[in-house]
Amino acid sequence: VQQGEQKPFERVYDVSSGDPHRVGMPPLTFIRQVLAACLYPDLLKDDSLPVDVRQRARTLLDVCEGGSVGSYSLTYSGIPLIQKTIAEFITRRDGGVESKPENIIFSSGLERALSLVLHLLSGGEGQTRTGVLTPVPCPHTLPMQLDEAHLEQVSYQLLEEQGWALDLAELHRALRTTRGRCETRAIYISNPGNPTGHVQDRKTIEEVIRFAASESLVLLVEEVFQDSVLGQEKRFVSYRKVLLEMGEPYSKRVELVSLHSLCTAGMGECGLRGGYMEVINMDPAVREFINILPCSGSPPILPQLALGVMASPPSPGDSSYETFMQEVLHVERTLSHNARRACEFLNGLPRMSCVPAEAGIFLYPRLDLPLGITEQAQMLGVEPDVLFCQRFLEEEGVCVGPGCENGQDDDNFHIRSAKPTALICVLAPPAALEEVLTRLRSFHLRLLSSCC
Amino acid sequence: VQQGEQKPFERVYDVSSGDPHRVGMPPLTFIRQVLAACLYPDLLKDDSLPVDVRQRARTLLDVCEGGSVGSYSLTYSGIPLIQKTIAEFITRRDGGVESKPENIIFSSGLERALSLVLHLLSGGEGQTRTGVLTPVPCPHTLPMQLDEAHLEQVSYQLLEEQGWALDLAELHRALRTTRGRCETRAIYISNPGNPTGHVQDRKTIEEVIRFAASESLVLLVEEVFQDSVLGQEKRFVSYRKVLLEMGEPYSKRVELVSLHSLCTAGMGECGLRGGYMEVINMDPAVREFINILPCSGSPPILPQLALGVMASPPSPGDSSYETFMQEVLHVERTLSHNARRACEFLNGLPRMSCVPAEAGIFLYPRLDLPLGITEQAQMLGVEPDVLFCQRFLEEEGVCVGPGCENGQDDDNFHIRSAKPTALICVLAPPAALEEVLTRLRSFHLRLLSSCC
Repeated sequence: VQQGEQKPFERVYDVSSGDPHRVGMPPLTFIRQVLAACLYPDLLKDDSLPVDVRQRARTLLDVCEGGSVGSYSLTYSGIPLIQKTIAEFITRRDGGVESKPENIIFSSGLERALSLVLHLLSGGEGQTRTGVLTPVPCPHTLPMQLDEAHLEQVSYQLLEEQGWALDLAELHRALRTTRGRCETRAIYISNPGNPTGHVQDRKTIEEVIRFAASESLVLLVEEVFQDSVLGQEKRFVSYRKVLLEMGEPYSKRVELVSLHSLCTAGMGECGLRGGYMEVINMDPAVREFINILPCSGSPPILPQLALGVMASPPSPGDSSYETFMQEVLHVERTLSHNARRACEFLNGLPRMSCVPAEAGIFLYPRLDLPLGITEQAQMLGVEPDVLFCQRFLEEEGVCVGPGCENGQDDDNFHIRSAKPTALICVLAPPAALEEVLTRLRSFHLRLLSSCC
Repeated sequence: VQQGEQKPFERVYDVSSGDPHRVGMPPLTFIRQVLAACLYPDLLKDDSLPVDVRQRARTLLDVCEGGSVGSYSLTYSGIPLIQKTIAEFITRRDGGVESKPENIIFSSGLERALSLVLHLLSGGEGQTRTGVLTPVPCPHTLPMQLDEAHLEQVSYQLLEEQGWALDLAELHRALRTTRGRCETRAIYISNPGNPTGHVQDRKTIEEVIRFAASESLVLLVEEVFQDSVLGQEKRFVSYRKVLLEMGEPYSKRVELVSLHSLCTAGMGECGLRGGYMEVINMDPAVREFINILPCSGSPPILPQLALGVMASPPSPGDSSYETFMQEVLHVERTLSHNARRACEFLNGLPRMSCVPAEAGIFLYPRLDLPLGITEQAQMLGVEPDVLFCQRFLEEEGVCVGPGCENGQDDDNFHIRSAKPTALICVLAPPAALEEVLTRLRSFHLRLLSSCC
């Protein structure tokens, strides 16, 4: 592609990552008002902002050193009051299963928190190198992160035919392959699944916990899409709740790191880069090490405040409550509608099939690519789904992510198609998801007819 | 110390780190207004904010994906327009020596940027392990960062009797000690010096560059206090300017990484965690690696916007110009007054001496501790200056940093006494620096009389 080359489309849609604001999803007003007031406290001098916004901002500024978001956190874990707020949120969410503030550790985004833990796990060379059981498909940044931390990716395949469910026998099989290859010390779980949208049930979670206990594995559980389970059939259950309810020996022995961030469907505040992890049963010496690892540095203040607001949204009776709930409901409805609509549409196309998402913001349709494309890809030295995505972007101006980035290393090529396209409806012309789907159909049919 | 124990002081002063807001220094209004408006664009709907603030916020929002600070940066380097703004700032500062936007890389704070580069330099074990020439004293986070990246700290001593100047013979001496011990691949420079306050002159910089060239060392140059040279005698000259003006072969060959952040004296926005590095002459393959290292992740948006504002403050004629200049001038005057006052005060105490700072926000007085204290420290298994600082905090409620954290491993014990105490005057009672100094005198004299 040449700079300045004419294209048959006026606007590019990037639906290749979970970034709702990019495609026009609006932020939640309450959180933005609170953060703006914390940055510029002169806004607290009159009543242009709602009274609960001003109260919240004052509370948050009170826990910043010197009353300013410009001061460092005193500790690398974060601001104690926000740790407490998060712990209370978790306890409430999990029906009273208590979370302790000192187990909450902030970071500049989920990837930073994960990177920290992965580096702590890392060790050995050759046969003693640390391995991590990793789902396939997995979040597209995970393989790079494992690689960067010198960890061996030990893949376990999720079952597409069962809606991308996790299969215990497959975990055992994957672990067996590592004898003499590496020392597997952790298992990574994404629940609800990124990019699959699968929601694990309690029975599966219990099985995984028993498996982790018997194999002495640390549980690394990413639970970002906990706020976006679609429909009424499934419900999010956290690994920590199940673990602590299983009782001893599990509740006292299995090491668990649970990861969450501001990049939920409802918040979508990816650019703020805020995340936290809750660490349970971790060796105190290791726990202490997390606090002093200089690589992490003192975590930024504003994302911590944002996480605090996420964990403690407006309550009934607060002046911002109605607006907040309307905005949240609007996101939920849009997401739910778009997920269904896009899945039906994709399944209506020839040589394409898609498992309905139970949660999250991604669809992950299977591409049954014609031989002509796979041969062309081989000639060019790229994965066939990368070629598909590159050509789709060049010809139709829509950016989708190639499935090979999600750790797929077999012959089944996938793309992640993000529901955020549909979330566009809220701010951008409601036709945005339709536009993406229409362009996809147009490109896909043209591709098929040129090859078959 | 017991929880709830009664203390003879009402307020604790923490002057142990370069964190001006913590001790009551106010932020610059313009930057806070712009960031607040970017977070909550409804503030742009009326004229409650100055017109140049609103214009700036609109310009910045235009370069955010989807017009929201909640979207990811498209690249790990950062937002292209802000890269351009920074490059223009550097070019202007250096009298026209051109900086290229593509050489500017954002990160979540200076430590993150440095950590990234240190990990790229890291390699080898035993005799082939990478070493980094490191000033003593150095910024107190540096030894931990080197250690975390598995790098060998190769100390070179700065000359206290010459105002903490860098000595070329000492660099050669330090390098000779590493034969058979490690492979030294980089030299770390802090200029103006943290914590020494020394400002290097052009001749020294040229010598260091020639030394780096002849020994094939990467120059890692931290220049955070470039905005706070005190008095008229010294002037900040950047390493990059000198390097590029030296001409070939130096200007085309010596690899340089220059680090800057929001933690300047004037901004003091430590809690935002924003930094950037300019990389010059770096191998393109290495440069590419920085862009994809997942450990770094997409940098947060707000700190990038703040850096953009720092690099392009209000101009004469802008509606915020007068206020902005008054605020900046106020910081400069307070800093300058306090630096002089505190230095005189410290030099007036028995068994204490302090080199006047030429720049930056730290004083670094020498403690001539009595034998009783050093013996007590030995019994307790701590460094004598750690004991001094612990007791000062417990007895007088003032937290200063022990010099041993700045890489001092000899018998000359130092504390960093931060000028930010003085900056308190702006917001807190003007007596705040005096309070710290008074408590220090009281503690120090009591300590001496109990030991001697």
